Amino acid sequence: MVAEIICVGTEILLGNIVNTNAAYLSERLAGLGVSVFFETTVGDNPERLQETIELGLERSDILILSGGLGPTKDDLTKEIAAKACGQELVEDKKAKQKLLDYFAGREHKMTENNLKQAMVPEDCTVLYNENGTAPGMVINAQQNKKIILLPGPPSELIPMFHRQVEPILQSYQRGVLYSKVVKIDSVGESLVETKVLDLIDEQSNPTVAPYAKLGEVHLRVTAKADTKENGQELVMPMVDELKKRFPTEIFTIEEDVTLEQVIVEELVKKHYSIATAESCTGGLLAGRIINVAGASDVLNEGYITYSNEAKMKNLGVKEETLAAVGAVSREVAKEMAEGVCKVAHSNVGVGITGLAGPGGETKDKKPGLVYIGVCVNGDTTVNKYQLRGNRKKIREVAVSRALTMIRQKIM
Amino acid sequence: MVAEIICVGTEILLGNIVNTNAAYLSERLAGLGVSVFFETTVGDNPERLQETIELGLERSDILILSGGLGPTKDDLTKEIAAKACGQELVEDKKAKQKLLDYFAGREHKMTENNLKQAMVPEDCTVLYNENGTAPGMVINAQQNKKIILLPGPPSELIPMFHRQVEPILQSYQRGVLYSKVVKIDSVGESLVETKVLDLIDEQSNPTVAPYAKLGEVHLRVTAKADTKENGQELVMPMVDELKKRFPTEIFTIEEDVTLEQVIVEELVKKHYSIATAESCTGGLLAGRIINVAGASDVLNEGYITYSNEAKMKNLGVKEETLAAVGAVSREVAKEMAEGVCKVAHSNVGVGITGLAGPGGETKDKKPGLVYIGVCVNGDTTVNKYQLRGNRKKIREVAVSRALTMIRQKIM
Repeated sequence: MVAEIICVGTEILLGNIVNTNAAYLSERLAGLGVSVFFETTVGDNPERLQETIELGLERSDILILSGGLGPTKDDLTKEIAAKACGQELVEDKKAKQKLLDYFAGREHKMTENNLKQAMVPEDCTVLYNENGTAPGMVINAQQNKKIILLPGPPSELIPMFHRQVEPILQSYQRGVLYSKVVKIDSVGESLVETKVLDLIDEQSNPTVAPYAKLGEVHLRVTAKADTKENGQELVMPMVDELKKRFPTEIFTIEEDVTLEQVIVEELVKKHYSIATAESCTGGLLAGRIINVAGASDVLNEGYITYSNEAKMKNLGVKEETLAAVGAVSREVAKEMAEGVCKVAHSNVGVGITGLAGPGGETKDKKPGLVYIGVCVNGDTTVNKYQLRGNRKKIREVAVSRALTMIRQKIM
Repeated sequence: MVAEIICVGTEILLGNIVNTNAAYLSERLAGLGVSVFFETTVGDNPERLQETIELGLERSDILILSGGLGPTKDDLTKEIAAKACGQELVEDKKAKQKLLDYFAGREHKMTENNLKQAMVPEDCTVLYNENGTAPGMVINAQQNKKIILLPGPPSELIPMFHRQVEPILQSYQRGVLYSKVVKIDSVGESLVETKVLDLIDEQSNPTVAPYAKLGEVHLRVTAKADTKENGQELVMPMVDELKKRFPTEIFTIEEDVTLEQVIVEELVKKHYSIATAESCTGGLLAGRIINVAGASDVLNEGYITYSNEAKMKNLGVKEETLAAVGAVSREVAKEMAEGVCKVAHSNVGVGITGLAGPGGETKDKKPGLVYIGVCVNGDTTVNKYQLRGNRKKIREVAVSRALTMIRQKIM
């Protein structure tokens, strides 16, 4: 079964809002095993909307439209969809009553144009709206083709889709889609792909697909099957194969688990505390660790030591070291990591010092040069990185590298 | 001139990522006076991508594609676009050299598939990538039709579009579009809209369009004119009108200037130093200030004091205060702000304490409750906020509110 998402609204085309409905619907449909090959956004324009619906009916089984169901002049999704199916609009008594009830308990009087919302195509199932005034609907468009109309506001669309549309879609479906995501943090995208090239084949079941993320590569393993259990049986051997190929590089196979979460959980398990000392990343590493609810169990404090004085005063970095090799150096990263362990009485200490640029470069030290020290119970590793990109990118990637170093050193 | 946006990536259709590129491109194109009637997202599938490109070439002058330019087998945007234009791929020497240079200074070795990225269609302008490996390109597709290919990661797409594509698009336009963006940091979107409702009219020249950003509202004023000077003459009186309506709420009218930059510049001007003390935001405030190149002139150090012990030890927050009113309180925010001024010998101190959730709530303190204290030369203001959203959103908005408070107090 192939669905197509059509979002209606000039405000999306003007960039006024980010289209989170498309992301929500995509993810839910993938979870239901419904393939989505196209998503289109089109403005509040009758001809272009009709063109989009007609094209969609040619190439997909189900069209899911969001937006344009409201009471105003601009709202014409329902009218155009009915026209594309050759249906008239008729009044739905229950929808009308719900509208009257809705406005009865409100300070604003109902204006006449609101009644437009009670009109529905002749051959459809009405989806009554528990969170707003515009009902949705499932239109029987053609033999085996459906057009599903949903209101635009996410607060109305999400519950309507979840509670009313998903059971309908499930009843159409034979089989399920089961997937796992294998997350890797210490190998680049092209090297990951080189190592799994033989597994990437769109026709196979399960499929393996790589996604590059900031400082990470995710491999999604997906199987089509008749039941969830059978899907799992297809997926798990492939996950095991990937674990063999990336024995130390995979940090999780759980969809919702982040790298910082893996680290926090491992620290909790080991009863370790962690403290951060950041120069060029200026708080972003601590910021990511504290993303994890419950980080307070392992992180008590962190230091942003941007100046040499702060490095000496707060972390005990030696003046001689700074004078001899400069702040951006292997030695200072080491003294920062070890110093912050000492002042924070923590098991793990991380020191980051680097040049995020622009400016500040010398003959030997170019922007993007970052030293990261990780000290675990007195044993310190320092890595040197030459990162690319603008100031923001360099700082974000440095944080990812630091997290990877922490993970590798504590696991 | 009509453009069409085509985002390529199965990960978007699976809902793995929210399509922020489409929103960015839409906003910029609207700002350039380029109409966008359709946005389509299509997966990494050669036939469907080709179908989408061919349909786009029928109905639009410019196609802007994002994603699918990388080194892997899934990346086929360039190949399909070249095919749709009847062009062969040839090696671009400079692109190849840049690739070799890129990998020369890297931890990872370059794999053979990376060289694929140096191949470009015969008749195109190459857009070299300053923030990644995949170059973009402007392909001369047909008489007066262009296909513009951009890398998918926003950190690469945004600077490439802004610096390299916008000047090209401007050169295609007859007349100019002159715009200014008025950035407001201390009034919500609906209130801003209410105050400028009489100015929002799509048919007027200049137009005024509101965009909601994290903790900010931007009003873009855009005029069509024959010369830049005439555009400016139309835009500036409207900007002045907005300044009258938001006398203290506007922090800049410059496109590239951020709130943190305004603050750093003002601190430099006043020869003020700033220090941060963060609990729930855990380094994100310092992280945003250090986004500004040159922040080292004003920020020497910051403290992440997540535990009560760290608040006492590093900032001198009193044990009695913590015991009496708890860590998330007006009093502790004040002591943190004043304490960090003292230990860092800074003019400005900021203290943030709050409940980012989930969990940790009491009868009186719900997740989203944040106290922010800002001390400037001994004079402290503390504000209380009840923010909405998940942990990440609450922390990010808290940082925005803190920046606004700093701005208001030092300006």
